[in-house]
Amino acid sequence: MINNRYILRRRDHLADQEELLLHETLFHNANGYLGVRSCLEENPGGFRSVRGMYLNGFCDIIPMIQAENLYGLANEKETMLNVLDTQTVRLFAGDEAFSCFSGECSSERVLDMEAGLSRRIVSWRSPGGKRLRLQITRMASFVIQPLFLMQYELYSEDYRGPVRFESLHEGDVRNYSNPDDPRLARESRQNIRVLSSGVDKTGASRMVSETLRSGLRLASLAYNSLASPAYNSLALLAYNSLDTGYSGRFTTGASRIQQELCAEIEPGQSLTLSKYTVLCDSIRYGEGIEDAAEQILGEALEQGPLGLYAAQKNYLRNYWENCRIEIRGDDALNQALLYNQYQLLQSVSRDGRGNIAAKGLSGEGYEGHYFWDTEMYIMPFFALCDPPIARALIEYRYRILDRARENAALLGHRSGALFPWRTIRGMECSGFFPAGAAQYHINGDIAYAVINYWLLTGDIEFIASKGAEIVFETARLWLDLGNYNNRGQFVINDVTGPDEYTCIVNNNYYTNVLAQYNLEWAVKLYALLKARNLLKELEDKININEREIADFTGAAKAMYLPYDRSLGINLQDDSFLDKKDLDIAAIPAEQHPLLLHYHPLFLYRHRVCKQADTVLAHFILEEKTSPEAIRNSYNYYEKITTHDSSLSACVFSIMASRLGMLDKACGYFGDSAKLDLFNLHQNTRDGIHTANMGGSWMAVVYGFGGLRVKEAGLYLAPIIPGAWEGYEFCIFYRGSRITVAVGPDEFEISASPENAEGITVFVYGEPRLLRGKLRGSIPALK
Amino acid sequence: MINNRYILRRRDHLADQEELLLHETLFHNANGYLGVRSCLEENPGGFRSVRGMYLNGFCDIIPMIQAENLYGLANEKETMLNVLDTQTVRLFAGDEAFSCFSGECSSERVLDMEAGLSRRIVSWRSPGGKRLRLQITRMASFVIQPLFLMQYELYSEDYRGPVRFESLHEGDVRNYSNPDDPRLARESRQNIRVLSSGVDKTGASRMVSETLRSGLRLASLAYNSLASPAYNSLALLAYNSLDTGYSGRFTTGASRIQQELCAEIEPGQSLTLSKYTVLCDSIRYGEGIEDAAEQILGEALEQGPLGLYAAQKNYLRNYWENCRIEIRGDDALNQALLYNQYQLLQSVSRDGRGNIAAKGLSGEGYEGHYFWDTEMYIMPFFALCDPPIARALIEYRYRILDRARENAALLGHRSGALFPWRTIRGMECSGFFPAGAAQYHINGDIAYAVINYWLLTGDIEFIASKGAEIVFETARLWLDLGNYNNRGQFVINDVTGPDEYTCIVNNNYYTNVLAQYNLEWAVKLYALLKARNLLKELEDKININEREIADFTGAAKAMYLPYDRSLGINLQDDSFLDKKDLDIAAIPAEQHPLLLHYHPLFLYRHRVCKQADTVLAHFILEEKTSPEAIRNSYNYYEKITTHDSSLSACVFSIMASRLGMLDKACGYFGDSAKLDLFNLHQNTRDGIHTANMGGSWMAVVYGFGGLRVKEAGLYLAPIIPGAWEGYEFCIFYRGSRITVAVGPDEFEISASPENAEGITVFVYGEPRLLRGKLRGSIPALK
Repeated sequence: MINNRYILRRRDHLADQEELLLHETLFHNANGYLGVRSCLEENPGGFRSVRGMYLNGFCDIIPMIQAENLYGLANEKETMLNVLDTQTVRLFAGDEAFSCFSGECSSERVLDMEAGLSRRIVSWRSPGGKRLRLQITRMASFVIQPLFLMQYELYSEDYRGPVRFESLHEGDVRNYSNPDDPRLARESRQNIRVLSSGVDKTGASRMVSETLRSGLRLASLAYNSLASPAYNSLALLAYNSLDTGYSGRFTTGASRIQQELCAEIEPGQSLTLSKYTVLCDSIRYGEGIEDAAEQILGEALEQGPLGLYAAQKNYLRNYWENCRIEIRGDDALNQALLYNQYQLLQSVSRDGRGNIAAKGLSGEGYEGHYFWDTEMYIMPFFALCDPPIARALIEYRYRILDRARENAALLGHRSGALFPWRTIRGMECSGFFPAGAAQYHINGDIAYAVINYWLLTGDIEFIASKGAEIVFETARLWLDLGNYNNRGQFVINDVTGPDEYTCIVNNNYYTNVLAQYNLEWAVKLYALLKARNLLKELEDKININEREIADFTGAAKAMYLPYDRSLGINLQDDSFLDKKDLDIAAIPAEQHPLLLHYHPLFLYRHRVCKQADTVLAHFILEEKTSPEAIRNSYNYYEKITTHDSSLSACVFSIMASRLGMLDKACGYFGDSAKLDLFNLHQNTRDGIHTANMGGSWMAVVYGFGGLRVKEAGLYLAPIIPGAWEGYEFCIFYRGSRITVAVGPDEFEISASPENAEGITVFVYGEPRLLRGKLRGSIPALK
Repeated sequence: MINNRYILRRRDHLADQEELLLHETLFHNANGYLGVRSCLEENPGGFRSVRGMYLNGFCDIIPMIQAENLYGLANEKETMLNVLDTQTVRLFAGDEAFSCFSGECSSERVLDMEAGLSRRIVSWRSPGGKRLRLQITRMASFVIQPLFLMQYELYSEDYRGPVRFESLHEGDVRNYSNPDDPRLARESRQNIRVLSSGVDKTGASRMVSETLRSGLRLASLAYNSLASPAYNSLALLAYNSLDTGYSGRFTTGASRIQQELCAEIEPGQSLTLSKYTVLCDSIRYGEGIEDAAEQILGEALEQGPLGLYAAQKNYLRNYWENCRIEIRGDDALNQALLYNQYQLLQSVSRDGRGNIAAKGLSGEGYEGHYFWDTEMYIMPFFALCDPPIARALIEYRYRILDRARENAALLGHRSGALFPWRTIRGMECSGFFPAGAAQYHINGDIAYAVINYWLLTGDIEFIASKGAEIVFETARLWLDLGNYNNRGQFVINDVTGPDEYTCIVNNNYYTNVLAQYNLEWAVKLYALLKARNLLKELEDKININEREIADFTGAAKAMYLPYDRSLGINLQDDSFLDKKDLDIAAIPAEQHPLLLHYHPLFLYRHRVCKQADTVLAHFILEEKTSPEAIRNSYNYYEKITTHDSSLSACVFSIMASRLGMLDKACGYFGDSAKLDLFNLHQNTRDGIHTANMGGSWMAVVYGFGGLRVKEAGLYLAPIIPGAWEGYEFCIFYRGSRITVAVGPDEFEISASPENAEGITVFVYGEPRLLRGKLRGSIPALK
C-alpha cells in the first residue's frame, strides 16, 4: 500500500552490501547538471561504495589500448569523472563517532519526488549507550543547478554533552575501480587534481580543480553552518547563522579542507548542520568559474534552505503538471512510472552542453557515455512533455556535429557526418567497433529525433538554424555509405543494428528504414526551408543543392528493405534466416544474460536477439511496411529475443498494445516500469537505466494510448488493460497541452488552452476536431 | 653478378638507421631452436636496435587488456622472449673502445649459406689513428642446437700495444618496445629474471633464468677463450686454450657477468676471441637444464670451432642436396630462393616442441606467434624435402590438441577442437577476434597438412597415433559449427577467411571447401584405420564411431560452395558481390598497404582483397570446382587484390603458372622470392616473412613444375618461363627422391634410389611409369 505515490521509502539492511550499493543509486540526488550518489555521510570503511559526485559532460580523456590495434580504432576515450566529495560529514558525540555499522542502528531512506529531496533517517544507539536520531536531507537544486544542499539534523534522546561535526571538502578523489570486474576500470586513476584551495572571508571553503587531459576546470565552494539548539528551526539556518559562533575551525590541505563545527546538546534538543556545495564548471562558466560559484552561493544563502526547498517544490509542481501520468488501480506501477519520470529529470542536461548518460548522473556504469538511448527512448518523453529540454538535447548534438564530420572522415567517408556511438564531448569512445562505431543507425536516430521535434513543435527557427544541418549531414552519410546493387536497390552493408547479438551485417532493416526516412526528410526540409527562404545560410555553409537532393530522393526511393515472403516478415538483415536455431528455453537461467556466458561468435551464429530491432523499426516507422508484416514480425522476433538489453521490454510492450495483445503489453510494461525500482536486471547499483525509464513512459503513451506523431497530425488510439481502472497522461502538441484520460469504456481528450480553430486529432484513424474536449468509447479488442 | 649463390654480401651504410635494423634481420643466425639477431657486438648507443636472442617456443604470458571486454575474449597472450645477451663483446685497443660509429669505419656483412655462418668484416681507423681489421663470425649450430658460437678476430695493421675484450653474459634483458609504434609494445617489460649466476670451475659463466608467469626456465653458459698471437690459428682455439693465460677476469653481478680478456698485439698480428654460448630450456631439458648445458658445452669445446664448422657444413651439404633447387639464367632469383630455403631451416623447430613463427627467430614482429602460415605455406616444402621436419611440425599441433579442445568449448562448441589462430604454446592470442579467432579455416589448414603428409609419406603409424585424431577432432568442429539450411545445404556462418579485408562472413569458399575436404578425409582415414585394425585406441579415447562418420559424410556431401553463375566464379563468401567497388588504381601509393590507412569498416564494405583467398582455395583443392571457374576466379580476384599480405604473391604466381600466364607467374614469383632480401614490404627489419619464403619455393615446384599431390599419386606438368635457361628441383615421395630438371624444350624426371617397381607419375595428366629416368618435351602454351 502506497500512501503517497511521490514518496518512496526503503529500509536499509545494513548487512547487505549489494543493497547499500543499490540504495546509493536509487536515492541519488541530481538535477541534470550535478549528481551525487546517496553514500553514507560518515563514510565508514570495510564495504564497497561508489562514492561519486558527477557533472553532466564533465570528463577526462583516458587511454583505451586496443588489444590489437587497427587503423582508425579509438585509442582513448572520455570518461565521466567523480569530481569531488562534499557528502562526507562525520559526527562525534563526545568521543564516539557515528557509524551505522557500530552500536545499534536502524536506517531508512526516503525519496520525496514532490519536494525534490531525499532523506536518510537513522536511529542510533552508540556502543557507549547514547541514543541519537539523525535525519539527513539532500537536495540537488533544479532551480540553482550548481547547488547541492545537505541538512544534517541531530536529535538527542538521552545524550547531554559536546557534539562535533567534521565536514569535508575533498578534492583528491578517484573514480570507482574494481580489479575483479572486467567491465570496470582495473586501476583507480586520478584524473582531476586540485589547483588551489583555501577558505573564503565568508567562511566558505574553496577549491579549483582541473582535469588531467581534457583541460576542464571546476570551482567548488562548500559552506557549513550549524544552528544552535536555541534556534532549532530551519527558518533560521540562513546566511547570517555564521555569526552564531558555530562556524568552527578549518584544517586546510592542498586538496582537502576539513571544517570542524562544535556545539553542546541536551536530551530532547536538536542541532542542524546545513552544508551548501556549489559547483561551477568551465564547460558552462568558462573563465569565470570562481566568480560564478561565489555569486551562486550568495544567492543560495540568501534564500536559505526553506526558500530553496520552496523553489524546488515549485519547480517540480510545474514539471509534474506538464508530464502528468497516472494509472488508476495499480499504485506500485504508478509509483514506478513517477520514479522513472523523476529520474529522467534528474538525468537530463537542460543547457545544450550535456546530454543524458545511459546511467544518468547516478553511477559510473558505461562511464557516463551518451548513446542513441537519448534520441530513441528519452527524447520522445521530453519532446512531448517539456519541448525546451528536447531542443537542448538536439543542441548538444549540433554542438558535436563537427566532431561527427571528423569521425565520418576517419571511417573513410567523403562527405557527411557520423555521430559517435558512445561519447561525452564528441569523441568516439567505443572500444569494440563491431558493436560500437559500426552502429551507424545512431545517425538515423538523431535525424529521427530532429524530425519528431519539428513535427511536435513546428519550431522552424530551430530547424533552419540547426536541425536541418543535422538532417542534411546525416543524409549525406547514408548516400556515401550505401550503394546501388545490380538490381538497382540501394543497399547498406557492414553495419550493426540495435541488436548486438549480430554484428556487421548487410541491410539491417532498422538501419535501412531509418536511413530512408532520414533521406526523405532531408528532401522535405530542403523544400520547406527553400520555400520560406530560410536556406541561404546553410547553402553557403555546407553547399547543399538540388543535385544532391535529387540523389537523396533517388536513394530513398531505391532503399532496399529486407522482407521474407515465406514468413511474411521483415528480416533483421540479409542473412538473418541463415543462422542456426537456438533453443533459448533450454538455456539455464544462470546463463542469462547470454552476453556474459557466450562468446560473441556463438551469439552471432545463432538466431537470437538481445533486444528489439526490427520490432523497434516497426514501432517508429510503421508506414514502411504492412500491418501483416508488423504482426508476423512481432510474433517471429518475440520468440527469439532474450531482452538481455534494458531497451527491449518497453518496445515489445508498445507493439503488443498496438497489436491488441494486452496481457503481453502489460507484462512487458511491468518489466520496464519496475526495472530499476525493483532492480530486475540486478545491476542498478551501477546506475539507473535512463533509456528504459523513457521507454516505460512510452509504453503508456505510445502503447496503451496509441499515440503516433505524423506529418498529418497527432494519432491516438487508446486501449486499456482489464486490471486498470483508468489512466491519464498529458502531452504538448504545437503549443497546446493535450490531456488524454482513459476509463474502462470511454476516453476523453482535452486541449488547453482551448484552441479556437481546434486541432485535428486522428482517433483510431479517424480525423476528429479537438476544440476543448473530445470524448468517445474504447473499441473492443478483436 | 653473383659469384657464389650461397654467399650473400652487403655493405653497411652506417648512417642508415633502417638498413642497420634490416641487416640485423637479414644476417641473423638461427637453427630452429635458437636465434640471434645480427646486432653490433660493441652495442653502441644512439641508434635503434632490436637486440634479441630468442628460443623457439620460449615465451611468457602477458596481459592483453581488451578495450571493451566481451565473454571469451583473450585477456592475455603468449609472447616470445628476448632471453639473453651474449652477443655483446667490446674491444679496447689501448684506451680506445671500438665502435663502428667512431673514427673511420667500413663494414660489410656476409652470409655463407653453405658453411652456415655469418660474418661481419670491419676495417677501422680509430679516432686516435690506430688501424685495425675485424672479422666476427657467428654460427647457430644446426648440429648442436643449443650452441651459438662467435669468433671475434682482430688484426692489427699498425697498432702495437695492449688489447682488451669485455665479453658480456647479460641476463637482464627485455623485449623491444617503441612507444611511437602502435604495433609494438609501448612499455618495455621484464618477463624473464635471473635466478642464479656465477662462474664455473671450467671458466664458463653460468646463469639460470626464469620467466615471470609461464614458469619456463633457461640455463645459459658462456665460455670465452682468447688465442694468443703466437697461436694465431683457428685450429688451436680449442678447449685447452684456457690454459694459455688469457682467460681473463670475471665481474659477476646478480644478472650480469662480464669477462675481461687481455693481450698484447703487434702490427701484422692477430688475436681471436672464441665465445661459446649454450642455452638449454626447460621445454626440452626439463629439470636437467644445467647439467645438459654443461655437457653440451663440453662437447662443443671438445670439437672446437673447426670441428663445429665442419659439422655445420656437413649438415648443410645434406640439406642443400635434399632441397636442391636451381634456376639457370637468373642468378639473383636463384640466390633469393636459396636464401629463403636457408631461412626456413633457420626458423623451423625440428623437435615437435616448437613450430615456425611468422618471423622465424629473426625478430619480434607478431611476437613469435605461430599461424596457419606453417601448414599452408611452409609445410609443403618440408613435407616434400625433409619429411621428418614436417612430421615434427604436426607433432607440435598434436601437442596442443587439448588446448584446441578447450578453445572450442570456450567458443561454445559442444565437440571437436578449434586450433588457436595465433599461439606459441596453445593459448589463443588473437586480440581482435573477428580477424583472429574467427578464422576457423586454421582447423582445415592443419587437417590439410596432415593429409598431405600422409599422401606424401604413407606414414600409417603416425596417422594412427596422432594424425587421425587431429583430422577427426577438426571434422567434429565443422559439424558443430555449421548447419543445414532450408535448402538442405550445409552452411558455415560467421567465420573469417584468409582475406582479412572482409571479416565474419557466411560461407567463405576457402573455409567451406577445406571443411569439406577435412570431413571427407575423416571418413577416409576412419575406413583406412578400421581396415588395418588400427582404430581401437582412438575409438576408446575419443569415441569416434560409424554414426558420427555418417554425419561427416552427410555434411561433406551437402557442403555449400558459393558460386555465381553470371560471373562463372566461386564467390569468396555469400555477400561478396554486394560490396561496393573500390578503384584500387586510384589509391595513391603512399596509402598502401590499405590496412594502415583505412578503417576496417571501410575495407569490409568494399570489394577488395588483402590476399589470395578463393584463389588459394583453387590452388590447394582444384578438383572442387571447374577449370573455367578457376580461370574466371583468377581473373576476377586478381583485379581486386592488393597483395598487402606477404601470403598473396606466391599463390597468384602458382595459379598464373597453372593457367599458362607465364609473365604474370614470373612477376609474382619475383615479388615473392625477393620480398625479404630486397625488403620489398619495407618491414623486414621486424623479421623475415617465413610463409612467403615457403611460398616462393612452392611457386617453382607447384607453379612452374605443376606439381600436385593427390590420392592417385604425384602429378607434374612443368612449364618454363622464356627468360630461364632451365630449372631443377628435388622432392621426396614415399621414400624416393625425385629430381625434376626442366630445360627450354624438354624435361627429365628421375628417381633415386631407383625403384624396382617404378612409381606412377602423372605427367601433364597422363600416367607414366617412373623407373630411373623419364623424359619428355614441354608442351607449347595455349
